[in-house]
Amino acid sequence: MNSRSNGALPSIRERILETALDEFYTCGFHGATMRNIAKAAGCSAANVYNHFENKSELLVEILRRASDEQFTATRNALRKTGDDPAERWRAAVAAHSLYIARNPRACLVANSELRYLGEIDRKRVVGSRDAQEQLFVDIAEEAVAQGIFSVRRVSQAVAAVLTMCAGIPLWFREDGPLTAEEVADDFALYALNLVGYSAG
Amino acid sequence: MNSRSNGALPSIRERILETALDEFYTCGFHGATMRNIAKAAGCSAANVYNHFENKSELLVEILRRASDEQFTATRNALRKTGDDPAERWRAAVAAHSLYIARNPRACLVANSELRYLGEIDRKRVVGSRDAQEQLFVDIAEEAVAQGIFSVRRVSQAVAAVLTMCAGIPLWFREDGPLTAEEVADDFALYALNLVGYSAG
Repeated sequence: MNSRSNGALPSIRERILETALDEFYTCGFHGATMRNIAKAAGCSAANVYNHFENKSELLVEILRRASDEQFTATRNALRKTGDDPAERWRAAVAAHSLYIARNPRACLVANSELRYLGEIDRKRVVGSRDAQEQLFVDIAEEAVAQGIFSVRRVSQAVAAVLTMCAGIPLWFREDGPLTAEEVADDFALYALNLVGYSAG
Repeated sequence: MNSRSNGALPSIRERILETALDEFYTCGFHGATMRNIAKAAGCSAANVYNHFENKSELLVEILRRASDEQFTATRNALRKTGDDPAERWRAAVAAHSLYIARNPRACLVANSELRYLGEIDRKRVVGSRDAQEQLFVDIAEEAVAQGIFSVRRVSQAVAAVLTMCAGIPLWFREDGPLTAEEVADDFALYALNLVGYSAG
């Protein structure tokens, strides 16, 4: 998450969120401890508790931020795209994939640790994800209505595309042969193919 | 995993593997305890240690078995399929997806907990997965060579397809509107589309 994008030193709250992500990534939700998170952030455990009630609260905040940032990236890409649903689908999948390739740890933790949150906390995160998913469903349904996508179950196809993108951090390496942009473009093409897009 | 498929009562070792999968699924690798696993299996912790040296050993055995069973299911499906690479691709993806839809917990644990294994243990699991992946790469490369698939980076497309399938347990419900077979057939079609299949 680009909490340092303005160049200023991160606040203690931001530092805690960054070290908590490291800790969740390395040890999993159940293995993570508030003490380790505090230590890595250079503060006391009491200081962490001043900002976050417990581990769940930290995980909820990390996952909601990542989801919100990703959603914003997708909507920004769509703002620069015209009305053609195929172009909108391509732009949305590329932006969504690019965020994942650039924020692999947050996205991996989102997929592997979400199920350890309690019911209420999970709902707080899932709401933001559902909104993202709906955006993709709307674009695909419009494309099906216009006869340019040929896919039977739109929601299921969207789930397939989004989980395909969510898998990028499992194999993509920043220092590998492909850039994040190239991977994102490839995945946008896969997603266009998957829904039976025909340009004619 | 279908350890009870012969109808006999499971041995204590099998019971431990089943309760360990429950425990890893519910609590994650770091949250799981050998004591809870023993209790759920109806034996002592010492008994568990007679069969498995530690938690890692249990996770390795669960993940390797699931991977081997899945691989066997795919190869069995291919044995009943002819030489056409498109048909082989469809059959392989359908069998692979069907195994995931029928064994959601083992597949979810494989994806979320694998990274907590140490380097050597991870390699023991990943070897079996790599062999599966190579099977899909070989089919797709043959199809590209014959000009019936149009995809630039075969390994990346295979990774996209396999992670798309791995996401099935995140949304598929056995008591939902679709059967595991229907989902598997849909995913085989997505996978054919994804690689730019054209029937000629």
